[in-house]
Amino acid sequence: MKAKPRIVVIGGGTGTYTVLTGLKKYPLHLSAIISMMDSGGSNRVIRDEFGLLPTSDIRQCIVGLASAESNEVLRKLFTYRYNQGTGIAGMTFGNLFMAALTDIYGSQKKAIEQTCKLLNVKGKIIPVTYDNVQLAAKYENGKMVLGEHFIDEPDEQIGKYRISELSVIPDAKANFEAIKAIEKADLIVMGPGDLYTSILCNLVVDGMREALQKSPAKIIYVMNLMTKFGQTNNLTAREILKEVEKYISRKVDIVLLNSRHSYPKNVLRRYKLEQSEPTMDDLGNLKNIIREDFVSDEVYESQNSDRLKRSFIRHDPEKLARKIVLYSR
Amino acid sequence: MKAKPRIVVIGGGTGTYTVLTGLKKYPLHLSAIISMMDSGGSNRVIRDEFGLLPTSDIRQCIVGLASAESNEVLRKLFTYRYNQGTGIAGMTFGNLFMAALTDIYGSQKKAIEQTCKLLNVKGKIIPVTYDNVQLAAKYENGKMVLGEHFIDEPDEQIGKYRISELSVIPDAKANFEAIKAIEKADLIVMGPGDLYTSILCNLVVDGMREALQKSPAKIIYVMNLMTKFGQTNNLTAREILKEVEKYISRKVDIVLLNSRHSYPKNVLRRYKLEQSEPTMDDLGNLKNIIREDFVSDEVYESQNSDRLKRSFIRHDPEKLARKIVLYSR
Repeated sequence: MKAKPRIVVIGGGTGTYTVLTGLKKYPLHLSAIISMMDSGGSNRVIRDEFGLLPTSDIRQCIVGLASAESNEVLRKLFTYRYNQGTGIAGMTFGNLFMAALTDIYGSQKKAIEQTCKLLNVKGKIIPVTYDNVQLAAKYENGKMVLGEHFIDEPDEQIGKYRISELSVIPDAKANFEAIKAIEKADLIVMGPGDLYTSILCNLVVDGMREALQKSPAKIIYVMNLMTKFGQTNNLTAREILKEVEKYISRKVDIVLLNSRHSYPKNVLRRYKLEQSEPTMDDLGNLKNIIREDFVSDEVYESQNSDRLKRSFIRHDPEKLARKIVLYSR
Repeated sequence: MKAKPRIVVIGGGTGTYTVLTGLKKYPLHLSAIISMMDSGGSNRVIRDEFGLLPTSDIRQCIVGLASAESNEVLRKLFTYRYNQGTGIAGMTFGNLFMAALTDIYGSQKKAIEQTCKLLNVKGKIIPVTYDNVQLAAKYENGKMVLGEHFIDEPDEQIGKYRISELSVIPDAKANFEAIKAIEKADLIVMGPGDLYTSILCNLVVDGMREALQKSPAKIIYVMNLMTKFGQTNNLTAREILKEVEKYISRKVDIVLLNSRHSYPKNVLRRYKLEQSEPTMDDLGNLKNIIREDFVSDEVYESQNSDRLKRSFIRHDPEKLARKIVLYSR
């Protein structure tokens, strides 16, 4: 029997969650290397008041990789955010859960392991680093911004500029398990997701870039459907790809690019308000650009619904996974 | 095959926890009717900020009745109390857990059911009422105190007086399931536990007293090992029993009374500081007083230990349960 293909997903946030929920249904050896730089909301409390590393990205991946047979109550709790209670409102249950487990078991590593076991997680969730760092962005105009959530939601002035250099402060060492997973990988997947705050933030951790350079595994990059203010505003697909390749110091082997663009106008209008628009495809006829319909059908199904949300144009987990696994063999 | 005996335990707090952990090992149909009047610490937040009923007594019973095969991580979490985080320190994980579940499932009833399922609870946990009430005590000197935790930890002045009348404000209606459980019971167990704030508080809920009066089931009362300032200071066993019988408007059928009194001196000294001493046995030769060694051996084993805690003289779950089940057939 041939060994299961080893796929490593690098990221954090909703995009990575989407990829993982799709991939978990296949017989794969799945590893998710997840960013540990979140600094907003619930994570600020976790960092400043509990002295722990932020766990929101980890938490979301745990839910993404929780098996269908895992306890439904626990899965629901893990996506729950409190809306009452002084000091409690705004906290996620998952963060409080992991803070308690860390205290009980003495380390976040063990707390994450126990949580994965409890939710019957398929695959391995690997924090990119266990060092306590803040993400830092230097912009074209020379300004520096410190803290993931200030980069993720920049003010109007700074958000207009491109990020010229991403780093973590202080320097961080990659988790040994992350390096090992990359070494053994048959395929590496990055994106979709916020370019700097979910994807590239993992690559500025010492050792990650070198591991990717050395790895014989192919790298797939899933291009975002929409641009995002403060990160990719006015960037074309080609520019985004170039930026990714700058941070990994090698070429991306395959790009998955959505080709179905007829989004409902009211949805686009909402995105426009946030200075967000469909990523412009200027990648031309490179042979490893896979153009297909990768979009979730829900966006089309609820054209007239009031329930449209900011993130409503999104990738379809099944469509992405089906394509990704083709490259893993 | 004979149906399993139906035992109903009425109470809350550590004493009831002890009885339940002992009884759960027997093939019984076990119901625990639990007080819902706690108002201190974590429960104050749950009540005032979340607008929910207090769940600390319920939570403790859930842990008590959790099966040995239930998830160990969850059991550990359920006894965890946060010691960090503004607004979070002092909260119990269990209370936050149930607050989240109540929001998700829309009612505390469902939240309790889901939690019991998750922890594989043996038997049925029944909140004595779903009405939002405060416990009120009127003392011999005419003073009133409102709020369970002010009665549980009274100030020096008021604590010297006996409680002449216990009630809940506003009036509360007994949970229908509690009444039904009492109707069907083969045996009813009360105590050990704080006389007013864990045991009798259940009996001042409308319908409870009547149900107990009507029930053909025998009632066992487990006498506390130690008196407690503000509740039973200077009360003898006979006076305590009389007080219980006043609130149930019938006789207690069997009293379990510890007969092994040679407690270590350093332990007694600690209790003395809190104006607490062994309950004086003046019950004489009534035939239904069962005098036996019901004390946990741990108190003797760690005579020279520094780890002695306030509650260190305690009942042994196995010794109690072994005796209780004899009366259930």
